[in-house]
Amino acid sequence: MSPVLRPSSEELQPLLDLFNSLHPIGRRVEVYLQKNLYCNSVKKGELLVKSGEICDSIYFIKKGVLRGFIEEDGKEVTTWLTVENEVVATITGFLLRKPTMENIQAIEDCELLGIRFEDLNRLYLKYPSFNIVGRKITELYYVYAEQRAYITRLHDAEKKYEICMELYSHFLNRIPLKYIASFLGITIETLSRVRSRASGKK
Amino acid sequence: MSPVLRPSSEELQPLLDLFNSLHPIGRRVEVYLQKNLYCNSVKKGELLVKSGEICDSIYFIKKGVLRGFIEEDGKEVTTWLTVENEVVATITGFLLRKPTMENIQAIEDCELLGIRFEDLNRLYLKYPSFNIVGRKITELYYVYAEQRAYITRLHDAEKKYEICMELYSHFLNRIPLKYIASFLGITIETLSRVRSRASGKK
Repeated sequence: MSPVLRPSSEELQPLLDLFNSLHPIGRRVEVYLQKNLYCNSVKKGELLVKSGEICDSIYFIKKGVLRGFIEEDGKEVTTWLTVENEVVATITGFLLRKPTMENIQAIEDCELLGIRFEDLNRLYLKYPSFNIVGRKITELYYVYAEQRAYITRLHDAEKKYEICMELYSHFLNRIPLKYIASFLGITIETLSRVRSRASGKK
Repeated sequence: MSPVLRPSSEELQPLLDLFNSLHPIGRRVEVYLQKNLYCNSVKKGELLVKSGEICDSIYFIKKGVLRGFIEEDGKEVTTWLTVENEVVATITGFLLRKPTMENIQAIEDCELLGIRFEDLNRLYLKYPSFNIVGRKITELYYVYAEQRAYITRLHDAEKKYEICMELYSHFLNRIPLKYIASFLGITIETLSRVRSRASGKK
């Protein structure tokens, strides 16, 4: 196994900025993070988390794009899409310490900062005010999950695409069409039709 | 408007038990809750929250069953089901202070304890350790949301029903079949077929 690589102050800064935008975390938490976060990378196409495994860490994306997917009857269904400066894990696997059905795959070469479940929980115990950040960030991602669920529940392909654009327009052009179609639960042909209609409207 | 009714110690106990099972909340938080929670009730069929409104409060269910639903082309789609001793709100509406697409409707006569957004946030500010409870409860409901999303993504009706039974077997017999079918995204006929096959397997 390769030695654990800790992030430099510069590499840590975007994550500290995210946390501090929710609640000031203080110098001691910064030091804790620098000592307990580790650098990780996954190449385009590789899996960060595989279904059936327990998701041991939660990751901050420094660079790249990832997707979640489940498999049903040998077919992949994309469940979410995410990009740099976001946080990522298979949430049931990470929080419940159980194997989940979900996979996480790199759509581009990715650089990540990970923290292990035990180290995050030690942080919550040692610095209780960090629970304010933890609460706010969980609330935020819960809202994202509800917005995704809303897309899944809708039947109207144009409405689905419209909400998808609202949420992901800043990186949707980096996602292969097959993953967008699968995420929306429509065929690539329907997606192409909806996209050309949407661009015609501009 | 009728005067605000505060819960008795006895009425408050199940909620305190829920909070204390996550992290001890202490006497001062209990007193704050008693002073700021209010009693509410909705009759069977009535809406607790209507789409287009901002969800002003989050509720603890003392008694009864509720469902979330969205409307698309005049058709209702059930998005979740919940029961006593659970917490309920249209989460995007409550956290983002924006009108959501979601409605909350009582499936049975319901008794609830509500807390307004401002009063909950004052609680988080005044007693920072309550953020530990807030974080843990948000994590728990985020996991529930992911489990629901998983059902929605699947195509196999039997698999959908199986997971639904795992999650809701303790109150599924209180839910009219039309809502279960809508929640699973299948027809009532398919649901009946899946149910008789499942009961035959026992």
